Amino acid sequence: MSDEFDHNDTHSDGLTEGDYSLQRRDIAAILYAVDANDQAKLIALMEPLHAADIADLLEQLNTYDRCRLVRLYDREFDGEILSELEEGLREEIIAILRPDVLADAVRDLESDDVVDLVEDLDEPQQEAILGALEDADRVAVEQALTYPETSAGRLMQREVVVAPEHWTVGEAIDFLRRAEELPEQFYHVVLVDPRMHPKGNVTLGKLMSSRRNTKLTEIVEDVFQVFPVLQDEADVAYAFNQYHLISAPVVDESNRLVGVITIDDAMTVLDEEHEEDILRLAGVGDEASLTDTIFEAAKGRALWLFVNLLTAILASLVIGVFAETINQMVALAVLMPIVASMGGNAGTQTMTVTVRALATRDLTAQNAMRVVLREVSVGAVNGVIFGCLMALVAAFWFGVPMLALVIALAMLGTQVAAALGGIVIPMALDRAGIDPALASGPFVTTVTDVVGFYAFLGLAAWVLM
Amino acid sequence: MSDEFDHNDTHSDGLTEGDYSLQRRDIAAILYAVDANDQAKLIALMEPLHAADIADLLEQLNTYDRCRLVRLYDREFDGEILSELEEGLREEIIAILRPDVLADAVRDLESDDVVDLVEDLDEPQQEAILGALEDADRVAVEQALTYPETSAGRLMQREVVVAPEHWTVGEAIDFLRRAEELPEQFYHVVLVDPRMHPKGNVTLGKLMSSRRNTKLTEIVEDVFQVFPVLQDEADVAYAFNQYHLISAPVVDESNRLVGVITIDDAMTVLDEEHEEDILRLAGVGDEASLTDTIFEAAKGRALWLFVNLLTAILASLVIGVFAETINQMVALAVLMPIVASMGGNAGTQTMTVTVRALATRDLTAQNAMRVVLREVSVGAVNGVIFGCLMALVAAFWFGVPMLALVIALAMLGTQVAAALGGIVIPMALDRAGIDPALASGPFVTTVTDVVGFYAFLGLAAWVLM
Repeated sequence: MSDEFDHNDTHSDGLTEGDYSLQRRDIAAILYAVDANDQAKLIALMEPLHAADIADLLEQLNTYDRCRLVRLYDREFDGEILSELEEGLREEIIAILRPDVLADAVRDLESDDVVDLVEDLDEPQQEAILGALEDADRVAVEQALTYPETSAGRLMQREVVVAPEHWTVGEAIDFLRRAEELPEQFYHVVLVDPRMHPKGNVTLGKLMSSRRNTKLTEIVEDVFQVFPVLQDEADVAYAFNQYHLISAPVVDESNRLVGVITIDDAMTVLDEEHEEDILRLAGVGDEASLTDTIFEAAKGRALWLFVNLLTAILASLVIGVFAETINQMVALAVLMPIVASMGGNAGTQTMTVTVRALATRDLTAQNAMRVVLREVSVGAVNGVIFGCLMALVAAFWFGVPMLALVIALAMLGTQVAAALGGIVIPMALDRAGIDPALASGPFVTTVTDVVGFYAFLGLAAWVLM
Repeated sequence: MSDEFDHNDTHSDGLTEGDYSLQRRDIAAILYAVDANDQAKLIALMEPLHAADIADLLEQLNTYDRCRLVRLYDREFDGEILSELEEGLREEIIAILRPDVLADAVRDLESDDVVDLVEDLDEPQQEAILGALEDADRVAVEQALTYPETSAGRLMQREVVVAPEHWTVGEAIDFLRRAEELPEQFYHVVLVDPRMHPKGNVTLGKLMSSRRNTKLTEIVEDVFQVFPVLQDEADVAYAFNQYHLISAPVVDESNRLVGVITIDDAMTVLDEEHEEDILRLAGVGDEASLTDTIFEAAKGRALWLFVNLLTAILASLVIGVFAETINQMVALAVLMPIVASMGGNAGTQTMTVTVRALATRDLTAQNAMRVVLREVSVGAVNGVIFGCLMALVAAFWFGVPMLALVIALAMLGTQVAAALGGIVIPMALDRAGIDPALASGPFVTTVTDVVGFYAFLGLAAWVLM
């Protein structure tokens, strides 16, 4: 049997938290072999590693070591490693590989993996890879590339196991036993009518455990979801997660079966969507990764920083209006960032909850009004609590009772505005078809900063001057 | 055949973006039936819905409607709906259900779903559910509950299909065909030695397509990962994602097979981990959800707001030191929030990238030094760019060239400090065993605020006064 992971399995305590599949001493040994230019040793060390771990290893090395390793590893370089590499590095590695090594590597891949690999490459590299494929595979890949980039058509594999819906268990089993070639991984037999419209899924387990004369239609899965080939992959991933699907057929515009999507593809999409949300919420470019160069990373973040600069200048203009007031009482300058900062935090909290609830489809037209009211109430509750707390601090610090009143009221107003902005802005963006994770931040910050400074300084000018 | 989703499948254009499985008009019709107290109509309307959609529906209703719906739905209430409900609502619904309805509902569930259901309930509700189970199931659930809360043992199902490792394909097929009862869902036959140590996985597809006299050991999967029963579920989810596992055996301390984890459980864990990271990064309690009451939500966010208040006061103390300087030049009060805000943003960007890289295990001891240097360089690049930009704005706005110089230098210093804090703080917390997503925010904000105000006002006091 294959013991690809025996070096892990034999630890009876298993992976401990923070443990990596790839140990530091493994990396050191590999780099030592590279330094020594010892190909045999390198291949021996890499042999037990999963392609995903090799990809991680390459991502963690610096460019120089990475290049030397790939060159020394040479013919052993496997197509799956390319699939597992993050997009930013693929071009670099493909450029390093010898043309015949690259050709061998990609010929081993399933057609949906090749699609995933080539879709982001530039023309010459794409040609090189497509040229290496056998005719049938190339046609399949080119066909898949005609579907939009984030569609079910790009995600699916074309190899499907089908059976006519009138078959019995016995007929299906005999067919499978006789079949020349079955896909590497498949979980269902898809029942189709004579026009290739998918009609149900039968699991292999159910097939195995049913009597030969049972009709397949009697043992289909309760849950059966079919995806149109143009369906967005995010919706596909949502449905897999929501309905606990394992595999699901994909149909073309006339409802004919053209492929099947499996849960591991859906899991990858879900993972990417989450990653995107987190990075977008923080104002980092979507595809930020540790292998980006300094220039790429700086560029990815500069846009958001620039938007934030405009927001901050806007807030400063508000402060500028009250320059005279601040001149009369410098305590205002000392305290004002507290009001804005608390508002900014509360706004981010509400915004994050809202963005998540929209992404998971928990926030709908049905409960929108109630949720908005709840958020505003939460803002009011925390506004009262922290307003009072801050009033005590201000009174104790500066000994001006009216200043304490002003900051308490400003705090309350800012917390409520933050809650309102934090929920209404993402909802409005979502309805306008703009990703709320991407665009909410600057708007919410503007609201909390402007309201925070205006409420505090305006009240101070009115009450204290 | 079962057409549970036919009302979706027949749309040839399928789900459009932003479409929900549950349409607004469906909800309206259901509520109308509840209002009319029309049980037959309600059951007819709910019948085509998946348990996950019914759970979503319940989550979106207000407490009053929810209660009336559950009471009217009565005996039709399915155990799976409970499984799909978010934790916050389970107790409420369980309290509404009649005891015999509840007992029927939970008896239909698989033992791992019951575990998931009862683990967060309080004692009396837990007892009620355990009491409703048949003896064998109750023992299984109680056994599972002895494992730590986020362990592989809680996640696994105990029903496993095993075969002795010396069997042939023919023997395995005959065994499966004869088996009285097979699990609802299974994807692999696990090969075991005489001491029940798992030795390999054979997919059902491979079994189907191999000749009867083939040894099972010849067709095992290349990738075979075994999890100890105490392994943390986050590591399990990571391995499923990393190695594209579909199911994997779980072993006890003497390496004996005790259960199996399937990809759908891993997908759920991955989803929860992501959710947790996003909410923690925003300083919202881990388990914040739209069904929380106002009080619960306010409480969940108050802790972070309180920490932020302390941070903000600390920053204000820095400002207080320079009150005299501000008094001499009120422009400083107007501009200082810009420096701090830009620092805060840059810090959040770097922190988010770092927290994600730690979570995905892309940031390791191997590349730590290089990544820190890269982040600091990114901070310096953006510091120079935005420092110059802001210098122009300040010079134009206030007409004081030295003020422009001061803000440029303060901006540069704050951006570099933000980058350094944004990467070093999460890494240090991670090494100390503290979740960086949870705790990094306050520290990073403190660094950026204090450095921002101190650099700007300090430089101003030194250069301008």
